[in-house]
Amino acid sequence: MGLQHLSGQLSGAMSQQAREVMQRIEALARITDEPGRLTRTFCSPAMRDANALVGRWMRSAGMTTREDAVGNLIGSHTSSNPSGKILLMGSHLDTVRNAGKFDGPLGVLLAIACVDMLRRERHQLPFGIDVIGFADEEGVRYQTTYLGSRAMAGRLRKSDLARKDAEGITMENAILKATDSTAVGKGGDLAAAIRRVRINAHGVLGYFEAHIEQGPVLEKKNLPVGVVTAIAGQSRLSLKFIGVAGHAGTTPMNLRRDALCAAAEFVCAVESFARQQSDLVATVGQIKVEPGASNVIPGAAELTLDIRHQSDAVREAATAKLTSLAKAIARKRGAKLSSELVQATDAVPCSPRLQQVLARAIKKQQNRSVALPSGAGHDAAVLGTVVPATMLFVRCKAGISHHPDESVTIADVRVALAVMADFVRLLAKEFASNGALAKRR
Amino acid sequence: MGLQHLSGQLSGAMSQQAREVMQRIEALARITDEPGRLTRTFCSPAMRDANALVGRWMRSAGMTTREDAVGNLIGSHTSSNPSGKILLMGSHLDTVRNAGKFDGPLGVLLAIACVDMLRRERHQLPFGIDVIGFADEEGVRYQTTYLGSRAMAGRLRKSDLARKDAEGITMENAILKATDSTAVGKGGDLAAAIRRVRINAHGVLGYFEAHIEQGPVLEKKNLPVGVVTAIAGQSRLSLKFIGVAGHAGTTPMNLRRDALCAAAEFVCAVESFARQQSDLVATVGQIKVEPGASNVIPGAAELTLDIRHQSDAVREAATAKLTSLAKAIARKRGAKLSSELVQATDAVPCSPRLQQVLARAIKKQQNRSVALPSGAGHDAAVLGTVVPATMLFVRCKAGISHHPDESVTIADVRVALAVMADFVRLLAKEFASNGALAKRR
Repeated sequence: MGLQHLSGQLSGAMSQQAREVMQRIEALARITDEPGRLTRTFCSPAMRDANALVGRWMRSAGMTTREDAVGNLIGSHTSSNPSGKILLMGSHLDTVRNAGKFDGPLGVLLAIACVDMLRRERHQLPFGIDVIGFADEEGVRYQTTYLGSRAMAGRLRKSDLARKDAEGITMENAILKATDSTAVGKGGDLAAAIRRVRINAHGVLGYFEAHIEQGPVLEKKNLPVGVVTAIAGQSRLSLKFIGVAGHAGTTPMNLRRDALCAAAEFVCAVESFARQQSDLVATVGQIKVEPGASNVIPGAAELTLDIRHQSDAVREAATAKLTSLAKAIARKRGAKLSSELVQATDAVPCSPRLQQVLARAIKKQQNRSVALPSGAGHDAAVLGTVVPATMLFVRCKAGISHHPDESVTIADVRVALAVMADFVRLLAKEFASNGALAKRR
Repeated sequence: MGLQHLSGQLSGAMSQQAREVMQRIEALARITDEPGRLTRTFCSPAMRDANALVGRWMRSAGMTTREDAVGNLIGSHTSSNPSGKILLMGSHLDTVRNAGKFDGPLGVLLAIACVDMLRRERHQLPFGIDVIGFADEEGVRYQTTYLGSRAMAGRLRKSDLARKDAEGITMENAILKATDSTAVGKGGDLAAAIRRVRINAHGVLGYFEAHIEQGPVLEKKNLPVGVVTAIAGQSRLSLKFIGVAGHAGTTPMNLRRDALCAAAEFVCAVESFARQQSDLVATVGQIKVEPGASNVIPGAAELTLDIRHQSDAVREAATAKLTSLAKAIARKRGAKLSSELVQATDAVPCSPRLQQVLARAIKKQQNRSVALPSGAGHDAAVLGTVVPATMLFVRCKAGISHHPDESVTIADVRVALAVMADFVRLLAKEFASNGALAKRR
């Protein structure tokens, strides 16, 4: 039986599953640490309740569930033809403060629905599937992101456990209090238990994450979903133009060294440069002038610059180019420039092989598959450093995210679900025919 | 005896007078309300002491002294050939907080020295000279400027007397406590006494004020002094560009409506436009973006715009042009603009007739006379609305003012003094020949 035929047959079930995903999104949105708005942070009571509820949904989809030592929830769908390999699917269950409903939960609920569908159609998979609800991606409580996926990638450090939240509670105590003590075991050595959370990369086919785009590209292109090429790398810079302050009334234009004029010229140059580079985004999000009075020529202007691209080489070249542009602008104006690279994070490319499979699955559901980088970070950026990773972006209204107005349509959820089911089926077919997918990133 | 010959004869006396002006500048700089820095505010103990000291210097220059109802100090040099007309000369004795020594006092001390010189050379003047030390120009204590000259111009309102300083003391009480009660008279009706401060414009030939430039033009031109064309008018605007905030990582450049980019384009346009207009200055001194995070595209950018020119027509045209430029930039970028005219003050032109006389006096002391507008306000801006006014700018180091680094050389003080003496002599000569100067602005 061809895949296309099978999809058609199941479209009624798909609509039912999409409806259920939307109902579960609403149910999860009611589980919050802050009455009146959605906030669910690492190891909080709301996270405990969310894990309990999602665990029940996992089990009703035929999965066995467990929680690891940092509070990641894992539902296992065991293959009927076990190769010993597993496909990881998931996203995070924590949220930012005053969050939208879809950022994180959508990927977990879609994965559960996908497993449920494949189980109902009694699809024989040559690998197992673990659906993961990560315990922390947003980093709200401990000001450090990706606690769940870092533990799985073996990148959560013992020093992280000593971090304190706003109330002075260490991460170690928060975890011990909140999580299933059986995961830590006798003696209560949490650090050792967290080392055991690390996945065995050799046994993993790959990691799949569905997530809202958090940007406007799919909406602009009028497409429900898209495939992610990479989680973009990021450079954050701080730049300060130092000119000469002066009286706004008594200093003629030609004798000024106005630091804000230099900064403004730079802001325009940043925009113009980034527009010419495919997929590059560069943003000046903060600017401050000194002394900052309406009748005084600014003597200094300090600004931030955020540069992102899926290619580290492109990002680094852009960073160098924009820094040298800033220097040239300062020099031309008799001003000084100080600049500092505050942070640089490398891009994490998604697996080209898995992208290809995902693109084939997408093309079956919508006219064309667009590939786009993710400018925001995701659990896939962490897991992608140890196993092949791929991401499906789902269109969200006006690109709004991290806000109660976050919105996704049920029609798009249905498309995403159909794409995911096809992705798993295509993967199973390829795996059956060559069995070596895990080795080919 | 020709003027030139007379000047030569007196050059030794001039140097002595310049030295004395500098010594008096130092003596006055020690009279302060705040130990360790120079601050002298309206009706403060330091102002009382300053008036007492300057009054002694006036009397030693042969003047009779009095204080009016707002605390202006007036030294009168009576003509030996009285026409009933007087020339006003002066500046202010109050200062900003942590002030320089020259802003204000220089003009008063130069006027006293000028009268002293003319008296010593027994120059027969056909008019009297009143030297005025204004009680308040900076407006530090009551947040409203020109209290002294506004009283003389009949523009100090009764409502001003109800203003309170930072300690809740009304202006009326501050004046009654500090000034010579004889000026108020029996019954203590201060408002009536202040009405009597108003000068009789018909009896006044004009007002002359020497002041440091507070800008870099004379230094740049390598000239000790210059003649002021007008006290520039000023328009203050508040503008806000409203774009769309967004994620700095997920919003492609071509889908942004970055409010800061719009503002930056505007700042560059303001600078470029003002550079093309003779004597126009336009300054963006404050800028604020919202939400103001390094990883968020600015959704709004608010800025101030300060525009000054000696011609109201030029300033108003510039204000209209720049506002329409801002609108065009917003429209082109799909952003919105809100703009508000916060304040508009008309220019006060200096008397062309007195400018001419002053320029002749200047040309005798330095190769050429440059005419420049004053971008800052002065007592001449107030008196200039009721009598012909003229101003002499004296070069100050690097244009620095309102700062302890304010600096003027003794050589420039000597030039200024020579120019002032010649100005009075030229005025006397013209007055004697046509007697109608007061009617010809």
